[in-house]
Amino acid sequence: MKQPIKAIVFDVYGTLFDVHSVKDACEQEFPEKGAAISQVWRTKQLEYFFWRHMMGRYEDFDKVTRDALRYALAVHDATSTEEIEQRLVASYAHLTPYEEVESVLKELHDVKTVILSNGTDEMLEALLRNAGLSDYFDEVVSVDGIKQPKPTPAAYMHWFKTSGLRRDEVLFLSSNGWDIAGAKNFGFHAAWINRNDLPFEEFDVKPDAVYPNLNHLSEWL
Amino acid sequence: MKQPIKAIVFDVYGTLFDVHSVKDACEQEFPEKGAAISQVWRTKQLEYFFWRHMMGRYEDFDKVTRDALRYALAVHDATSTEEIEQRLVASYAHLTPYEEVESVLKELHDVKTVILSNGTDEMLEALLRNAGLSDYFDEVVSVDGIKQPKPTPAAYMHWFKTSGLRRDEVLFLSSNGWDIAGAKNFGFHAAWINRNDLPFEEFDVKPDAVYPNLNHLSEWL
Repeated sequence: MKQPIKAIVFDVYGTLFDVHSVKDACEQEFPEKGAAISQVWRTKQLEYFFWRHMMGRYEDFDKVTRDALRYALAVHDATSTEEIEQRLVASYAHLTPYEEVESVLKELHDVKTVILSNGTDEMLEALLRNAGLSDYFDEVVSVDGIKQPKPTPAAYMHWFKTSGLRRDEVLFLSSNGWDIAGAKNFGFHAAWINRNDLPFEEFDVKPDAVYPNLNHLSEWL
Repeated sequence: MKQPIKAIVFDVYGTLFDVHSVKDACEQEFPEKGAAISQVWRTKQLEYFFWRHMMGRYEDFDKVTRDALRYALAVHDATSTEEIEQRLVASYAHLTPYEEVESVLKELHDVKTVILSNGTDEMLEALLRNAGLSDYFDEVVSVDGIKQPKPTPAAYMHWFKTSGLRRDEVLFLSSNGWDIAGAKNFGFHAAWINRNDLPFEEFDVKPDAVYPNLNHLSEWL
């Protein structure tokens, strides 16, 4: 029996939406290379966001997403144009939500639903609207408001300080191990959505729960 | 014609030593999985070091190297023992230096030679001694002294503040793109040792020079 919580905070990329749904768009522009480009794109997107933080050279997630795409294309010898890049970046606003997402969100009553993402306000707004999911969230918060990425404590604080809650009244959900470790480090409860059946990161902060998808939240409510 | 410099600062892992030379040791313990384990081991080693910095949970590079190995083994279903892990971690003190390293170091006169690494003092001391390279360096500096990883500015400052030099009198060498970006961000000259013929990272800080290996330093001297 888990402790009942008052807010559920969702990560977006990889948690609600499949970041690798861009591989079809990549494949269309660069046959046989779609999956590989998509993998590098995501890896570099996070690396650039984190490295920039470490160097004190913050740029928003839209900028690093574009930069990461350019690297992913270059490393796969995918000769591109401004136009192709625009089309691929646009596909990031049309990621596919995981199949259970809407039905799970529909069932959440009497608990505040929040998004806390490294994406910009504009990216999040477009993504949720295109997927028809905007109305399910009480708050949509971007770390861009404080220009510090998750998993820094400042990023979780950016939403939390406005919440009026105690940290242990919050359940944080992410499929990203660094995000779960960051949320636990901050003091939230955290459930790791282990969509790819992987071991958890070798970290001294561990999730309170591990689920294969979002269909397991009722024990927290 | 490059500006003559007074100190050459070397990164270690990937720059002087092949981090993937551990794949033979991995292969011996886990046939067919050596290269894959080695790849994940290196990726997670850096990720854990960086994520911990972001969370304010610093642990030294020896600890994250062990943690990263455990993850790499787990993700490849490589059932391990304490003994095997010890043997593999020990192999990190016996990495193979790239073939040109010693001959290049032998030719460096009238310039200070420095190591600045994320590795601990103990890791660096053992690695250089086992390779017979200790005597080529005037200083061996670990970021563990300040508990801030490269590419944070504090990490480069940790050595620099003791140097008595101007930043533009320093040439920094690394095969790691994040390290080159970090060194340039700090104000050093930086040459990227592009050992794998890759595009440079999509960053607004770029190397001053790109070389396939260390055999091209004379233009700086």
